[in-house]
Amino acid sequence: MGRWQPGARERLAVAAIELFEERGYDATTVADIAVRAGVTERTFFRQYADKREVLFGDPTAYNATFTDAVAAAPAEATPLEAVVAALRAAGGFFEGRHPYARRRTAVITSNAALLEREQIKRVHLTDAIAEALRERGAPAPVAALTAELGTVAFHQAFARWVAADVETDLGALAVQVLGELRAAIA
Amino acid sequence: MGRWQPGARERLAVAAIELFEERGYDATTVADIAVRAGVTERTFFRQYADKREVLFGDPTAYNATFTDAVAAAPAEATPLEAVVAALRAAGGFFEGRHPYARRRTAVITSNAALLEREQIKRVHLTDAIAEALRERGAPAPVAALTAELGTVAFHQAFARWVAADVETDLGALAVQVLGELRAAIA
Repeated sequence: MGRWQPGARERLAVAAIELFEERGYDATTVADIAVRAGVTERTFFRQYADKREVLFGDPTAYNATFTDAVAAAPAEATPLEAVVAALRAAGGFFEGRHPYARRRTAVITSNAALLEREQIKRVHLTDAIAEALRERGAPAPVAALTAELGTVAFHQAFARWVAADVETDLGALAVQVLGELRAAIA
Repeated sequence: MGRWQPGARERLAVAAIELFEERGYDATTVADIAVRAGVTERTFFRQYADKREVLFGDPTAYNATFTDAVAAAPAEATPLEAVVAALRAAGGFFEGRHPYARRRTAVITSNAALLEREQIKRVHLTDAIAEALRERGAPAPVAALTAELGTVAFHQAFARWVAADVETDLGALAVQVLGELRAAIA
């Protein structure tokens, strides 16, 4: 088999989540994942830096889903409107990924270290959105607070979305949660 | 010297922050801290589980400052009003601690692992406040969102408070930031 292995990345991701479910995250090794996916460990390490990265992927690409939407919002959009655009874009990012997201969430919530990693990911996302808002000209305190409102809404919406048996529109749910936040602070 | 050493805990905290400033957190050992404080390592470990705990203390006591205030708010107080009471109580907790808070923050922001720990502390605080709000009868989604608003306000206020040269009223600042959040989402 040559260096180029079509679908190796996806096969590794599927193999990893199966093993995490079967044996637990800590008890699964990179070697186990490679065997299950039918590739070598070298192939694993060409796709992922380590076992954890299979679950977390590239935070830059994930954050860019939000920040690109903030940047692309019309010049006259308020910071909140730009964040609403980001929430809808993030909803699109997760479209069709509900079954995997449920499995991934189950693995993560069963492991304190992974849960902390997930929470840190949210902090970095908030910082990235705040920066994108400042680049649109929002004053730093407004950018910081609006970014926080956006990630609070998104993560509360995500928790509900992933808990439901059937996939719904995550972006619309996040915008709805933003409305609940407005009501909670009114 | 007997087992009882008056002020050992405080001397250890002062010695630790001095050493973290001088040598960096990673390069400082528990033995270094004990020597600087003029106590044995055994005394250190009677006071703190490890080096990190000198900076983070007991999260239960910290969280209780907020949650006790939520619980003590009048029965007719809304979830947001209970959170406002918590923000004022937390302001009282930090009263007079501005010089130490500035030094601690400088140490923490220079170390990625400590910064992550600080962010996780905030997540646990949010969970604790949400639980206290549910115990007052708030529906779970309202409790979760109001707790998030409270910790966003508190941490943004704390960042400003600690960045200022002169100590101001942290509780009042946090309530002001809550007003800014309301404006950002209006």
